[in-house]
Amino acid sequence: MEMLIRRGFLWQSFEIYGGMAGFIDYAPLGNNLRRKIENIWREFFVIGERVAEIDTPLIGVEEVFIASGHATSFVDTAIECQKCGRVYRADHYVKEKLNLEVDASIDAIKEVMEVYELKCECGGNFGEPFPMNLMFSTKIGAGKGKLGYLRPETAQGIFVAFRRLSNYFRDKLPFGVAQIGRAFRNEISPRQGVIRLREFNQAELEFFVHPAEKKHPKFVELEKDTLTLVDKFDKTHRITLKEAVEKGIIANEVLAYFIGKTRRFLLSIGINDDKLRFRQHKDDEKAHYATDCWDAEALMSYGWIEIVGIADRTNYDLSRHANFSKVDMSVFIPYSAPVVVKKKKAIPKMSALGPVFKAKAKKIAEALEKVEVNSDEIEVEVDGEKIKLGKEFYTIQEVEEEVSGERIVPHVIEPSFGLDRITYTVLEHSFDKDIVEGEERKVLRLKRKVAPIEVAVLPLLSREPFTIKALEIVDLLRKSGFYTDYDDSGSIGRRYRRFDEIGTPFCITVDHQTFEDETVTIRDRDTTKQVRVKISELERVLKDLIRSDRSIEEFGEIFR
Amino acid sequence: MEMLIRRGFLWQSFEIYGGMAGFIDYAPLGNNLRRKIENIWREFFVIGERVAEIDTPLIGVEEVFIASGHATSFVDTAIECQKCGRVYRADHYVKEKLNLEVDASIDAIKEVMEVYELKCECGGNFGEPFPMNLMFSTKIGAGKGKLGYLRPETAQGIFVAFRRLSNYFRDKLPFGVAQIGRAFRNEISPRQGVIRLREFNQAELEFFVHPAEKKHPKFVELEKDTLTLVDKFDKTHRITLKEAVEKGIIANEVLAYFIGKTRRFLLSIGINDDKLRFRQHKDDEKAHYATDCWDAEALMSYGWIEIVGIADRTNYDLSRHANFSKVDMSVFIPYSAPVVVKKKKAIPKMSALGPVFKAKAKKIAEALEKVEVNSDEIEVEVDGEKIKLGKEFYTIQEVEEEVSGERIVPHVIEPSFGLDRITYTVLEHSFDKDIVEGEERKVLRLKRKVAPIEVAVLPLLSREPFTIKALEIVDLLRKSGFYTDYDDSGSIGRRYRRFDEIGTPFCITVDHQTFEDETVTIRDRDTTKQVRVKISELERVLKDLIRSDRSIEEFGEIFR
Repeated sequence: MEMLIRRGFLWQSFEIYGGMAGFIDYAPLGNNLRRKIENIWREFFVIGERVAEIDTPLIGVEEVFIASGHATSFVDTAIECQKCGRVYRADHYVKEKLNLEVDASIDAIKEVMEVYELKCECGGNFGEPFPMNLMFSTKIGAGKGKLGYLRPETAQGIFVAFRRLSNYFRDKLPFGVAQIGRAFRNEISPRQGVIRLREFNQAELEFFVHPAEKKHPKFVELEKDTLTLVDKFDKTHRITLKEAVEKGIIANEVLAYFIGKTRRFLLSIGINDDKLRFRQHKDDEKAHYATDCWDAEALMSYGWIEIVGIADRTNYDLSRHANFSKVDMSVFIPYSAPVVVKKKKAIPKMSALGPVFKAKAKKIAEALEKVEVNSDEIEVEVDGEKIKLGKEFYTIQEVEEEVSGERIVPHVIEPSFGLDRITYTVLEHSFDKDIVEGEERKVLRLKRKVAPIEVAVLPLLSREPFTIKALEIVDLLRKSGFYTDYDDSGSIGRRYRRFDEIGTPFCITVDHQTFEDETVTIRDRDTTKQVRVKISELERVLKDLIRSDRSIEEFGEIFR
Repeated sequence: MEMLIRRGFLWQSFEIYGGMAGFIDYAPLGNNLRRKIENIWREFFVIGERVAEIDTPLIGVEEVFIASGHATSFVDTAIECQKCGRVYRADHYVKEKLNLEVDASIDAIKEVMEVYELKCECGGNFGEPFPMNLMFSTKIGAGKGKLGYLRPETAQGIFVAFRRLSNYFRDKLPFGVAQIGRAFRNEISPRQGVIRLREFNQAELEFFVHPAEKKHPKFVELEKDTLTLVDKFDKTHRITLKEAVEKGIIANEVLAYFIGKTRRFLLSIGINDDKLRFRQHKDDEKAHYATDCWDAEALMSYGWIEIVGIADRTNYDLSRHANFSKVDMSVFIPYSAPVVVKKKKAIPKMSALGPVFKAKAKKIAEALEKVEVNSDEIEVEVDGEKIKLGKEFYTIQEVEEEVSGERIVPHVIEPSFGLDRITYTVLEHSFDKDIVEGEERKVLRLKRKVAPIEVAVLPLLSREPFTIKALEIVDLLRKSGFYTDYDDSGSIGRRYRRFDEIGTPFCITVDHQTFEDETVTIRDRDTTKQVRVKISELERVLKDLIRSDRSIEEFGEIFR
């Protein structure tokens, strides 16, 4: 962490005003790293699939979060000291002070407080525990305005626009919609550095499927991947995805596909497979809407930490929004061929209707003809009035009808990525020390494609003409789109170490020979080996190196 | 606009709950377009320069915006109808109803309201005009919590972190820091669609320079560019940047550099040079902190609209934050060689100090030796006590001192881009109609590199094996990172038109010959010409085409 701050990966926000827990700045290197991880996520989960990406507002109107349930259920229990005024998240405080895992409900907290006579760190007494909603609220517009919330997840912006999105995909399932961006959680008293943030970055994919067809067309591409699963009974399996689905450990193929895809993505950005597992939620841990849920967990200095959640959210969200907005969220699925269905229809008896209902009889008869008969009692609505009709008013006839399809509300499988934790995991898993020329060096073994600075240009001596030539090369590489840095202070060895520490994969050195034959050296971070290439070839060679895992030996003779 | 909504560029947010003025969704195509524009901005203004990008929180603590002045000055005057309760932005309402340009101050509004007996649209009377702060506010944490605001510009996140950023660049000016992200403005009653948003996207660059050296090392690269400037006296010039600086129309070279760079960026993403001008702020229009400010304005259906602001913000922000946070924001600038400076020093007279100050005399003498003498009266501080000393306590001696540099608070030149307006301008400037095969078609002539869908794959006939082959190619191209779509419904001509309408530069068609020789056709959107290429060559050819302006004729023989 000291290195990350010193070298410009992460900083505490508003530091000059004393800082604020739960907020961090992505400093230059951290920003580049996270942006690159986002772009690779986009390649994996958007561009490479039948998935569209959208970008919806961070502020949402109240109605969205009433329907989603967040306005009522997205709460933690808080306790406030009556002496010093400090507020704590109750379950965390109980865990910390009493080492007790406690249910976060108000009643459970109350009981623990009484039994253990819980006090504040200052010695003061706590007041009654109270629920705190974890959404940041704000007011939109002037005057009384309108209540709004900062979104607690990007997902709701997708569900709310589902009607339009389904049209965009011509109502053809399966399709996915992704969103990358900020989300917010007004934590009561966040502590764990970058792990528990009030403002964080998510990449979420909502993959909409037919409820009866939880298959993925590309599952075959990764079904043989072997990975570590911890099921809901805490049993660990080293198993292929195919087996996991066949044995019913993972509930369906779509979930399994995204578990596999998530693993491949995480490995590709440099997360260590030995420190990665997928853990199934226990039955009492799952969100109320989820039928099956798996967390990708990474082993970090904090222990095993959730970095991705992959849940089958069923049709919970779409159904809720349909109910609250009165907008139909179903999709019409045509059958491959029309199906003939037998239905019971009511044939009105005008001779019975006429005398009883007089002028209304005709309208009632029309309404009757449209009714499908499922029970003995029929109710029709005429001019806003509901009328119950006994068997005396109609006869029943069985008819055959051609049905061309059905309307269904899709289910959604959601892989939800915590980009901040992922970025931090990549840094932890990349951190390494080794011995070079008898001296210990710190090296960040980042994958080349996520390195925040891709190439450093160093004049062997910090004077002209070395510096001028090096700066010309810097300009050239920057114009070609490489994240390029320049450093002319200190010995060349010390400068190499500096770039090793921030994970820069390649250092270019301008030396005496440069002025003889227009060549420079390229040094590889991991092997510390060097080759010599022409300046005119530099752009092509670097592009090849950064986009691949090719060795520098393929581009010249190792001379050191 | 109808097309943008229908085809999936932009949607109103929260539509199913009635929508909310000032919020839009970036739908799949609009999202891709804006993301691509952002990436090109990053290439121009970050990667290509000595500029770092950071990403700081959207929620800021109150202190930041007290120092920046937003807490007090970022206000509009509002009027509320006492009958129907509607609230309007006063100056906009006066302009709309009375066609009067009025100063937005409360007094000016009051006067106009009285003179013209201004009424609400509903006929009701307005109450007293009142100021409304345009920042969204929220509460951080539980209990009383802490007041926070959603940032009104990304810039403050940079100024607040200046101390760390300057260290990152080893205190060597000039350097730049950029930020791309959301900003918020709680408009009273926004109307103009995508032009006036409550939640918008900015790309801002703060370029820190020595106040006495407002030069840019790369100005020479674009000083010969000719552009349209409208100066603060409303006079229009067609002039090179070099001339504009020499004649004093643009205040300094750094401003001119970024005006030129901004123009090159805007042209590269497809904004029309004939519909682009740079307009200087009039003296009464400038922000209080700016010494010179230029807006890039684009001609749109709304008239000339500001899309970029380029201002010399001087050291206003850094000085304010230094004052409010008590953190030094200056940078030490070493001279190229030490300078000898003459200074007056006070030599204490112990014989006079001893009797008067007794035990304190020694400490006073030590303090005196450190003082630089500028006036007749000297004040020293000893143990927190301030003591004035007359001439009787010291003699004055002139000494020579070597000074190795000076501390300065950098000035900042800020190009600030409104990405939403820019995205919309690109769409307007790209929209075109022409006649193809005797029929009018609508075509979005987007630059290839910003097209939201880069390539569409179409089976000539919508049945196997055409569809299967086409879907194989879709999968291949998606894995290679191309934004790829597939369409098998309707005649091939109609499908081409569909992709012309959303600006897709290339359509691939799988036809009968595909099954004979593994080739497909590539159709160019602008010329509607076609060439035939091998499927195995497709990735390379498309990459070359999309990254350049090369003609498809270079890749095969035109057959249609």
